[in-house]
Amino acid sequence: MRTEIATLGEFGLIRHLTEGIELKNESSRYGVGDDAAVLSYPADKEILVTTDLLLEGVHFDLTYVPLKHLGYKSAVVNFSDIYAMNGTPKQITVSLSLSKRFCIEDMEELYAGIRLACEEYHVDIVGGDTSSSYTGLTISITCIGEGERGKVVYRNGAQETNLICVSGDLGAAYMGLQLLEREKAVLTSDKDVQPDFAGKEYLLERQLKPEARKDIIEKLAQAGIQPTAMMDISDGLSSELLHICKQSKVGCRVYEEHIPIDYQTAVMAEEFNMNLTTCALNGGEDYELLFTVPIADHEKISEMEGVKLIGHITKAELGCALITRDGQEFELKAQGWNPLKGESAEQKNDEEAEKRGQRKFPVHTKC
Amino acid sequence: MRTEIATLGEFGLIRHLTEGIELKNESSRYGVGDDAAVLSYPADKEILVTTDLLLEGVHFDLTYVPLKHLGYKSAVVNFSDIYAMNGTPKQITVSLSLSKRFCIEDMEELYAGIRLACEEYHVDIVGGDTSSSYTGLTISITCIGEGERGKVVYRNGAQETNLICVSGDLGAAYMGLQLLEREKAVLTSDKDVQPDFAGKEYLLERQLKPEARKDIIEKLAQAGIQPTAMMDISDGLSSELLHICKQSKVGCRVYEEHIPIDYQTAVMAEEFNMNLTTCALNGGEDYELLFTVPIADHEKISEMEGVKLIGHITKAELGCALITRDGQEFELKAQGWNPLKGESAEQKNDEEAEKRGQRKFPVHTKC
Repeated sequence: MRTEIATLGEFGLIRHLTEGIELKNESSRYGVGDDAAVLSYPADKEILVTTDLLLEGVHFDLTYVPLKHLGYKSAVVNFSDIYAMNGTPKQITVSLSLSKRFCIEDMEELYAGIRLACEEYHVDIVGGDTSSSYTGLTISITCIGEGERGKVVYRNGAQETNLICVSGDLGAAYMGLQLLEREKAVLTSDKDVQPDFAGKEYLLERQLKPEARKDIIEKLAQAGIQPTAMMDISDGLSSELLHICKQSKVGCRVYEEHIPIDYQTAVMAEEFNMNLTTCALNGGEDYELLFTVPIADHEKISEMEGVKLIGHITKAELGCALITRDGQEFELKAQGWNPLKGESAEQKNDEEAEKRGQRKFPVHTKC
Repeated sequence: MRTEIATLGEFGLIRHLTEGIELKNESSRYGVGDDAAVLSYPADKEILVTTDLLLEGVHFDLTYVPLKHLGYKSAVVNFSDIYAMNGTPKQITVSLSLSKRFCIEDMEELYAGIRLACEEYHVDIVGGDTSSSYTGLTISITCIGEGERGKVVYRNGAQETNLICVSGDLGAAYMGLQLLEREKAVLTSDKDVQPDFAGKEYLLERQLKPEARKDIIEKLAQAGIQPTAMMDISDGLSSELLHICKQSKVGCRVYEEHIPIDYQTAVMAEEFNMNLTTCALNGGEDYELLFTVPIADHEKISEMEGVKLIGHITKAELGCALITRDGQEFELKAQGWNPLKGESAEQKNDEEAEKRGQRKFPVHTKC
């Protein structure tokens, strides 16, 4: 079923997509339907604002990303930024621009993913904007959240002797992307072959349906641990660690053997003949939390499930280094994915861009 | 001078563009440089959030829109939405995506316009996102503002016998657009001809450098007038009036002879052989304020400079109508610009899109 978007128009489409949305948070006073949304936060909260702009062909490829997953992920990556400030996401605005390739049913799918993420994380959709575009799909989401006054965690508070911690495991989202890109190439060369993802579901899920680490923020609060610095890992561990060290004016030592890596990530790296540590250090989109805590919290943090201690903060003069399994020291470098260097984004023409997403293959990740 | 954006990369470009930004508002606690911006509003304020997504070729044409003007306008249209809630804009986040056609100097121009608007309206830039795109320029701005608790004005509060008011004059921005489009067509056919804008500076300024009506909001507060409903006129008077009437469940009568129109708009409409009232009713992008006030404020509002009384609110059963100069009644219809119906946006290919903005002509509006 394909219903052209022109049958509804801009206002009609917004109305249709936001129908039945009920505001759940007390701070959400008025949502979609006026010149601006109206929010109301108590004076003991600090308000957090983050925004992300996602473009088809640059940030996502609709050949293998189902629209519902894309909607879910677009929302969750913004929530992740709010948690990374030690806050709680409360509202989002959603702006979309879309070419004529997309129909109302496509937008329903995308929105279903956004709404599912909002339900799971208790966030309200309070506004947005919809318009046409010449090429592909653009998604711009702004997320507003709250933090306790005085408990917001920045990138610049790490101090010498602090312990460096990460949640979950690293590199899996990147391996998931490699896997999807490989199967896409296979599909392009021979249409009868179906992609084979058996035993690699975890990698796919990490790439296609990441979660924000709400649970870690809650655990830290319950354990009475106040991180000194924190950010989420979207561009790779190396890149993020360097941000924290630069902004905190400190150095660091990270131990290769302590970097948490899932078994499937290791198997896949071997299959691709890639260096596993490099994948874990530089692969992006894990949306895990990277944070530092005072050394006095060593015991508490060691006992915390889902958190790994990977190193410690040093004086700035000592620089930022990785200690390998055999005891060698290597300077940490940011090789994170940089969409402005054009490494991942070749210039392609419109037709090409519009063709993307027409040939799809089934992805078996639930959303 | 042309410096490729790749020389700086994503983080470098953001740092470069946001260098030297100082936060001026007390509610802006932490700006660019972390996972999220941190704001702090007192409990007696309501927080307003609005967002706009602007795409090259759909919302602006770089053949005749200088980048500095574009930056200025992109910010101001968001401020306008906050004023339309009877609020004051305080912060914006700016997300950009750009193709390889753009260089660092281009982005400096664009940002100079955004920063100028922020200075004039006392707004802080607190965050954003930058990435590459396949085609053209995309700008996504989110604006956060404040309103006094209980004084925020929605679209749904208009009541029978209320007076309908507009600020400034209407249709000029639309005529400015027509003028620019005509000169663009001339330029395309014969490259030696320079565009002739003599005597039409006001129309150009209305299209290229609109202002948000901060002054009207201040005057209303000073006069002790609390509007019952309000919105800004971005899609045309007819369309906006219908929004207010629909959401307030009322009807209206608007008098053709009272619709404020500038002399230059009238001259231009004649030159283009267009119906002047149609231009004023349906031309978009004026960013004037449309609002309703209780009839008891008649005297105060009549004396207010820059505000015109154009009609009154009726029972819903009477519908929404325009009374012409000769006393006839016509049903009001929304013919406002709808970017999703594809009327203004033809599907063009990338090459075409990338060519736009390469051939430019000088526009003499100060920014």
